[in-house]
Amino acid sequence: MNRRELLQLTSAAALTTFAPAIAEAVSPTNHPATPQYDAFELVLEGPSSGNPFMDVTLSATFTLDHRAVTVDGFYDGGTTYRVRFMPDTIGQWSYATTSNLPALSSKSGTFTCTAARAGEHGPVAVARTRHFAHADGTPFFPFGTTCYAWVHQGAPYEQQTLDTLAYGPFNKIRMCIFPKSYEYNHNEPEFYPFPRAAGTPISSPGDTTRFDPAFFHHLEQRITDLRAIGVQADLILFHPYDRWGFATLDAETHGRYLRYTVARLAAFSNVWWSLANEFDLVRSKTTADFTNLLHIVQRYDPYQHMRSIHYSHTMYDYASPAVTHASIQTYDFAQAPAWLAAWNKPICYDEMQYEGDLPSRWGNLTGQEMTRRFWLAIVNGCYPTHGETFLTHPDAAQTDNEKIWWSHGGKLSGSSPARIAFLRKLLESMNTSGLDASPNPYYLNATGPSASDPKGPPGSILYYMDQHQPVQYIFPLPEGASYKAEIIDPWEMTITPVEGTHTGKTKLILPKKPAQALRFTRVRTADPVKG
Amino acid sequence: MNRRELLQLTSAAALTTFAPAIAEAVSPTNHPATPQYDAFELVLEGPSSGNPFMDVTLSATFTLDHRAVTVDGFYDGGTTYRVRFMPDTIGQWSYATTSNLPALSSKSGTFTCTAARAGEHGPVAVARTRHFAHADGTPFFPFGTTCYAWVHQGAPYEQQTLDTLAYGPFNKIRMCIFPKSYEYNHNEPEFYPFPRAAGTPISSPGDTTRFDPAFFHHLEQRITDLRAIGVQADLILFHPYDRWGFATLDAETHGRYLRYTVARLAAFSNVWWSLANEFDLVRSKTTADFTNLLHIVQRYDPYQHMRSIHYSHTMYDYASPAVTHASIQTYDFAQAPAWLAAWNKPICYDEMQYEGDLPSRWGNLTGQEMTRRFWLAIVNGCYPTHGETFLTHPDAAQTDNEKIWWSHGGKLSGSSPARIAFLRKLLESMNTSGLDASPNPYYLNATGPSASDPKGPPGSILYYMDQHQPVQYIFPLPEGASYKAEIIDPWEMTITPVEGTHTGKTKLILPKKPAQALRFTRVRTADPVKG
Repeated sequence: MNRRELLQLTSAAALTTFAPAIAEAVSPTNHPATPQYDAFELVLEGPSSGNPFMDVTLSATFTLDHRAVTVDGFYDGGTTYRVRFMPDTIGQWSYATTSNLPALSSKSGTFTCTAARAGEHGPVAVARTRHFAHADGTPFFPFGTTCYAWVHQGAPYEQQTLDTLAYGPFNKIRMCIFPKSYEYNHNEPEFYPFPRAAGTPISSPGDTTRFDPAFFHHLEQRITDLRAIGVQADLILFHPYDRWGFATLDAETHGRYLRYTVARLAAFSNVWWSLANEFDLVRSKTTADFTNLLHIVQRYDPYQHMRSIHYSHTMYDYASPAVTHASIQTYDFAQAPAWLAAWNKPICYDEMQYEGDLPSRWGNLTGQEMTRRFWLAIVNGCYPTHGETFLTHPDAAQTDNEKIWWSHGGKLSGSSPARIAFLRKLLESMNTSGLDASPNPYYLNATGPSASDPKGPPGSILYYMDQHQPVQYIFPLPEGASYKAEIIDPWEMTITPVEGTHTGKTKLILPKKPAQALRFTRVRTADPVKG
Repeated sequence: MNRRELLQLTSAAALTTFAPAIAEAVSPTNHPATPQYDAFELVLEGPSSGNPFMDVTLSATFTLDHRAVTVDGFYDGGTTYRVRFMPDTIGQWSYATTSNLPALSSKSGTFTCTAARAGEHGPVAVARTRHFAHADGTPFFPFGTTCYAWVHQGAPYEQQTLDTLAYGPFNKIRMCIFPKSYEYNHNEPEFYPFPRAAGTPISSPGDTTRFDPAFFHHLEQRITDLRAIGVQADLILFHPYDRWGFATLDAETHGRYLRYTVARLAAFSNVWWSLANEFDLVRSKTTADFTNLLHIVQRYDPYQHMRSIHYSHTMYDYASPAVTHASIQTYDFAQAPAWLAAWNKPICYDEMQYEGDLPSRWGNLTGQEMTRRFWLAIVNGCYPTHGETFLTHPDAAQTDNEKIWWSHGGKLSGSSPARIAFLRKLLESMNTSGLDASPNPYYLNATGPSASDPKGPPGSILYYMDQHQPVQYIFPLPEGASYKAEIIDPWEMTITPVEGTHTGKTKLILPKKPAQALRFTRVRTADPVKG
């Protein structure tokens, strides 16, 4: 723990104890009401001299009744300091600041937290062990996509990405904070995280004792834009694709970057933390280094947003409490039951190759295969992530800055997104908090509890027949409940109801076609036998 | 060892030593010439009293120059005894019999072995460790199919199966000797292996101290029929699908059955031994029991035909010298390299599910998926086996004796056989003794040695892109040799030549389509650099 951390902890502890007294002792500021799960922001004036990023500590404790939540503030350039806080409870909150500068210290006041805006369900957390839900209890089924460097492409292109996302099937996006240097990714970004004096060489990260507020203003705008269209920002905090030196800074600088980033961004309800993409390819850090960095986020995020880390070859130990869920790179679905049992937390298949036509093995799946992998993830009780990697022309591998969704965003041209939308809608219409894979399935299937009778027979059962095409099959539905049946064509996106209701062993005639699905929806508990 | 076995061994050993003298001492019989790899048959008259199956021992030793091969004879009903021998070398062979009956003993003579019939290449053996070749050196690539009970369907249906095989892509058939009792397999066969007196209950195997020659005459006719159309008979000696008690006889009876069967059938060049289908489902026997039975076949088969055993859930130890190759039930191709390394012998993917539409998971693949699995086996350096399980109507699961290729033979209606024929022809035109999977392939590929320069760069390289559809890829061809390239569509069955010849890293533009293949054929060693 460094000096600033020590100072902060001491102050925070003190404030937690004395906060109510302080809140009453000073005049409340006249703040506008903040809807639940939006960010309340306290703006303070302070000095710009020296290096406030390094020299000034600032935090505030927010209290409501018996609860007190301490959050970091941050310097935002000029004479501006800010403290952001996301209230999770309706009512009148009080706050009081603490700082090593008298000018920023002991500022206190109140604000009213009102009902959430329509469509705002609060941050996502783990629910029912292996699933997700928003803070208000709304189930959240991640249907992610990947646009690593989309916030580094300039406003017109970024707007196009947002337009695509607004109408697409995706409710989570995997995105890097640092700019990316990799195949097809050779542009310089408009914004850099650290200030760069004129003539800063390309291989320099800039002045890493400071942050560039413009960089974060831009990033915050994009997170806000995503929040407005209902998309979770799965923020990748480190990655190995780097020509500026952002990946190889010392541990203290990286820790300072994490605390500053958490202080600025944690109050956005749609933030997820991905400590790294392909952490094991960052050669300057060990796994233990990354665990330490995970612990920093774990310690300073007041809301405990979803938190994970993603690997290339060497899997992170997802049983660790440092992560809230697994973020895996594989398309091995047969292992899902064992991993779910071992880790006992949700699994996101965050990289299972991409629809496209790149030369690289990971970037040239058909839309059919991408659609298939989405279904396989779902019926294995896990959550899938999409990516798209089409080249506009075959020789583009040698062309700089070819725009590819997986990295730059833009427009989608693949055939899987429509099918992913269909699957997401199907799942969301099932009135379930999540599907769990059936053990020892003969055909892959998953069941979800009934919303109205969560301890009774399953409310929903979803089968995916994959490469199998039985012309008939006897489905072992639970006894003691009635189900309606639908035959689903995941590619043609059709739902064909089967007549009647069914209970127990149910023989259905099926289309002689692979990759079909069946949905059984509980309509009522079966009538008791009359005696 | 029982008394008869002891007697036989002693006689055989004595004959081996004294055979040349005996051959000179008696008048040679006037036998017609026997082509190489055909069966020479010595017919002897003997007693029919008592139980000759149990009471009479008969064997003969065949000699040519320094070699002596002893084979079992057998009683064939009435007063007929036979000794069959498959000569593998052209020349004049001598023989002399030994028996515990003077009437069958010391019969000797000669016959001439002439050149093999056109199209007869001799029995198959392991070649180049993980591949197969006929005795005359012709490479053999097994492209098998499965018709478990086809010889138990009656003459008209059996003829239809033969007609289908004659024009189909298959050069090996997995078939049971005992009749089969299983789903869709409820008919009584025309022939039983053991005599059944009038009124024998269905659950009785009959008189197991005798064999029914008519059963074996019929079976031999079918093996001969298969040999005539170039199909290996992969004979399944035991299986668990039984309502007659054939699977649960005592060890001595089973051992006698094996020796009798080997004595009758081993002289057919196209015989393979599969000790059991799904041996681990035969509950009356342990793995050790099956190993003992394998050892009986291993000991008494003079030609050491291909010999394996097939499992359901528990894999046999294919590293054992009791088996010449692995006969596996799985469609896990990712394990193939490890298994090939561990067992160091050929692998047949003998059951990788079937093209069809049955309710059962193993019986309802699309033709596309069956075709895909054939390709995956080949580019993993292994050999695939087909099966087809189409119901003629959806309610047939409850109908007895629905005819299904996988069990009854008949006609094929699937879409994979044409594609399998295409792949087999492709492989056979590659002038290779077999393809070995490339280690750590980025895309699956296998290489085969050049026939004219077996120690030089590969003569053939076959890529299978599976679900990948790169629009271009740089293929790492060997330096120092030139290759022509062809783009292959395994489903459309097209071969599209690419212009020019190629060496080293070769970039090709590919169709934007999954499941494409590439064949590179060495045209010459690259011209040496002139200095």
